[in-house]
Amino acid sequence: MSALPSVNNSHRRALGPIATPDRLLLGPGPSNAHPTVLQALARTPIGHLDPLYVELMGEVQELLRYAWQTDNRLTIPMSGTGSAAMEATLANTLEPGDKVLVAVKGYFGLRLVDMASRYRAEVVTIERPWGEAFTYEEIEAAVKLHRPAVLAMVHAETSTGICQPMDGIGDLCRSHDCLLLLDTVTSLGAVPVYLDDWKVDLAYSCSQKGLSCPPGLGPFTMGPRAEAKMAARQGKVPNWYLDVTLLNRYWGSDRVYHHTAPVNMNFGMREALRLLAEEGLEQAWARHRRNAERLWAGLEDLGLSLHAPEHLRLPTLTTVRIPEGVDGKAFCLHLLNAHGIEVGGGLGALAGKVWRIGLMGFNSQPENVDRLLELFRTELPAFHPGAASDRPAAVAV
Amino acid sequence: MSALPSVNNSHRRALGPIATPDRLLLGPGPSNAHPTVLQALARTPIGHLDPLYVELMGEVQELLRYAWQTDNRLTIPMSGTGSAAMEATLANTLEPGDKVLVAVKGYFGLRLVDMASRYRAEVVTIERPWGEAFTYEEIEAAVKLHRPAVLAMVHAETSTGICQPMDGIGDLCRSHDCLLLLDTVTSLGAVPVYLDDWKVDLAYSCSQKGLSCPPGLGPFTMGPRAEAKMAARQGKVPNWYLDVTLLNRYWGSDRVYHHTAPVNMNFGMREALRLLAEEGLEQAWARHRRNAERLWAGLEDLGLSLHAPEHLRLPTLTTVRIPEGVDGKAFCLHLLNAHGIEVGGGLGALAGKVWRIGLMGFNSQPENVDRLLELFRTELPAFHPGAASDRPAAVAV
Repeated sequence: MSALPSVNNSHRRALGPIATPDRLLLGPGPSNAHPTVLQALARTPIGHLDPLYVELMGEVQELLRYAWQTDNRLTIPMSGTGSAAMEATLANTLEPGDKVLVAVKGYFGLRLVDMASRYRAEVVTIERPWGEAFTYEEIEAAVKLHRPAVLAMVHAETSTGICQPMDGIGDLCRSHDCLLLLDTVTSLGAVPVYLDDWKVDLAYSCSQKGLSCPPGLGPFTMGPRAEAKMAARQGKVPNWYLDVTLLNRYWGSDRVYHHTAPVNMNFGMREALRLLAEEGLEQAWARHRRNAERLWAGLEDLGLSLHAPEHLRLPTLTTVRIPEGVDGKAFCLHLLNAHGIEVGGGLGALAGKVWRIGLMGFNSQPENVDRLLELFRTELPAFHPGAASDRPAAVAV
Repeated sequence: MSALPSVNNSHRRALGPIATPDRLLLGPGPSNAHPTVLQALARTPIGHLDPLYVELMGEVQELLRYAWQTDNRLTIPMSGTGSAAMEATLANTLEPGDKVLVAVKGYFGLRLVDMASRYRAEVVTIERPWGEAFTYEEIEAAVKLHRPAVLAMVHAETSTGICQPMDGIGDLCRSHDCLLLLDTVTSLGAVPVYLDDWKVDLAYSCSQKGLSCPPGLGPFTMGPRAEAKMAARQGKVPNWYLDVTLLNRYWGSDRVYHHTAPVNMNFGMREALRLLAEEGLEQAWARHRRNAERLWAGLEDLGLSLHAPEHLRLPTLTTVRIPEGVDGKAFCLHLLNAHGIEVGGGLGALAGKVWRIGLMGFNSQPENVDRLLELFRTELPAFHPGAASDRPAAVAV
């Protein structure tokens, strides 16, 4: 080792052990993970080709099918966050020049537009204001006009708190030879989703919301019609990491090495899905609904106004209008620093206009609703105009 | 909820809690994680825009710079495995038609070829047999002949156990206006790497080898010359998830939301890098060297033959030739099932010809070397031809 140059220590920092606080995460995500999911994460890794890991992969796939209500063979967690799974739905199916119709009613619709354009698709959009959903008739008119190869839409729009009704859209797509691609990031495991009943061909989600796992995996599923389109591609998928034709050889019966799987994250995912199957989908959906209704009633009792109309409201994510004159960001920082609770601000067109309150997975509990409502009751008044001098000092917790 | 279709329970499985065993992972990776890294993984998540997470991101970036010996501003863990970081180096810098020269001497060189071609680069290669390295003169001749925009090569080839000498290559690239892209997946934190001294412009690695963290993050770094090429691109990076122009707005001072970071994996990464800085790079490199030499001497004492010539041998990954007539895969399965130890088989051109023994990060300890050598001494003879009847029965542990 004598011939080595000396080591530069300018970036060497002497740090203490990690000391992050126990927050209650009631924003748009990540949400708190279930304690047994965190325990699963901390297990000793095993090899990604170990027979026991192969068995675990099968369990994860099967339970994801249950959560999504699909029989799709190609149902796997992508080794990245929900955005990676989102990109995978587009990267694998789109070829240059394919027409994609994106129904945009919030931030994540815009992201679909950006991603699809990078795969050289011809992207057309229809739009609704942020806080509304599309009617069937609007979707139908656009599909008939544009004749897209793919209709991409967001079921549960995290930026607005809107749940898109899905009645008839799958049949419409089939009768126009169009694939239906659905974002279920904020609905999987928490809000009724029936992928096969709805005739959805491609869907993606995340680990850190309804599934009560930390962020890091992106559930992905692809039905037979989307598989057929992928199989008919002219060239390779223009994204190696997310190439389902390669991933399928690892997750399928061949078990051919693709990349080293994030095994510990998959330990957590297996535990998260196991808990969901133990509770049962209907029970989990009903719990999310019940706690959301408790939150909505409490916020309205405090005189606050909810941004999404009741019939389109997502149980997982509630957008609350920030009252006139209140510094919404300052209130969020106060909740975080003085009370260890995270609530989100608005995104895109709703930046500065709403708070976003998440009740997802493990966090959808009445105790959390009551704790937050009590803080809105006692602490928010000091943030109204004219009350600034009474504002409690922020104390880091 | 009365109008909902009934739930299909055909994929609902009643599973017990996760019960993976404590393996000793002495294959090509993943390697065992340090116990305090696993503890860090299991902490309650915090928000990806939380001021405390922003601080943690800065610590991770700074310690990655130390580990790589670089001042590169753009030094971040990609939210995917090492293969995602590998793809990020190509996706961000290549434009269609760019000429890429890949120096292929093993499996991961071939992967660079595949990935680069997906970004519509003009890929040319030079090759060496699996188990050799390139001389400076070979590299020089190829750069002068092909005049590539990027020279991509693997420092530590996990498929062969070869460490590529880097002397002079960086200067060569600079004098030919060519970016130098280096795979340090099996060297970062364990084998001397001096990115800035070597004038490397783009590099990537993984979390689960020298850094003693589970797989799931892909350290990525980009120097000023690569940044300039990226900034001069005609169009958007054709990969949204790995787009460094977007990621830089999140990891940089703007903190603009891109994707929800895998916060728990980054807790683990912060702890892994903290431990490396505490030990010191020189000490970690020397430890890996010392334990590898102990392994090499022990294997040769047992009459086994090492595939890589000593002066090119990687301390992290040793390729051992499977003796004539021995069923190498059966011996690996025996070590796994009867003794809870994972050793890897050969990949690609070396499939069936070598075992791959990893001593990486937390696992580079003399006790592990001795335990494995003892099993090679006592158990391997039964796998030689003619000894099949004495072979110990595999017992799952």
